[in-house]
Amino acid sequence: MKKINLQEKFSLFEDHWSPKIIGEMNGHLIKIAKVKGKFVWHDHANEDELFLIIKGSLRLEFIHKEAVVLNEGEILIVPRGVEHKPIADEEVWLMLFEPSSTKHTGNIQTKLTQNKQDKI
Amino acid sequence: MKKINLQEKFSLFEDHWSPKIIGEMNGHLIKIAKVKGKFVWHDHANEDELFLIIKGSLRLEFIHKEAVVLNEGEILIVPRGVEHKPIADEEVWLMLFEPSSTKHTGNIQTKLTQNKQDKI
Repeated sequence: MKKINLQEKFSLFEDHWSPKIIGEMNGHLIKIAKVKGKFVWHDHANEDELFLIIKGSLRLEFIHKEAVVLNEGEILIVPRGVEHKPIADEEVWLMLFEPSSTKHTGNIQTKLTQNKQDKI
Repeated sequence: MKKINLQEKFSLFEDHWSPKIIGEMNGHLIKIAKVKGKFVWHDHANEDELFLIIKGSLRLEFIHKEAVVLNEGEILIVPRGVEHKPIADEEVWLMLFEPSSTKHTGNIQTKLTQNKQDKI
């Protein structure tokens, strides 16, 4: 049982769109990521996914809904099955809560897909 | 699907040790609380519990382990079954992530126990 310092964890990596696992609880993983640019359209059929913005401004686009812009200190829970596309004009630091079973880009495989995510 | 602004949610209440539900996902609740003073010793037999400090400094005491002091931007996951006692010398704002089944003070009932928690 060791405390997790978010700033310290963010200092350990530079790569974008490559979530790192920082904790685990009740079958869920707590991850952090740095993102910049456009990600791919994807959904997670069986898992709700929580985004919490630590730094910057993230735009989440949806197929049939208005886009949501999330700023520092803001959370969005994307329900299972809802296709989303994250876009960051500038670098964004974010925290994710999601079930351990969640795949990075859902059931699609892209060049951005990280099939194995590191624990830091 | 509506974004959740933490500062805005914290502005909606003043009471201490009374977690408010701000979101739900995968059978887990996201809660926020303002705390000050000493809470009671308790554990959650079947649920890991995550603390994330938004403001201030929270001390978590344990029976057989050294206490942990959590500052802003720090997380601790208290594993199921581990007795803990949160203490805040000054007011602390925190976020909790825990299964919906989690009882406020575990299996004990105290004058601080909130059996019903509001959604805000």
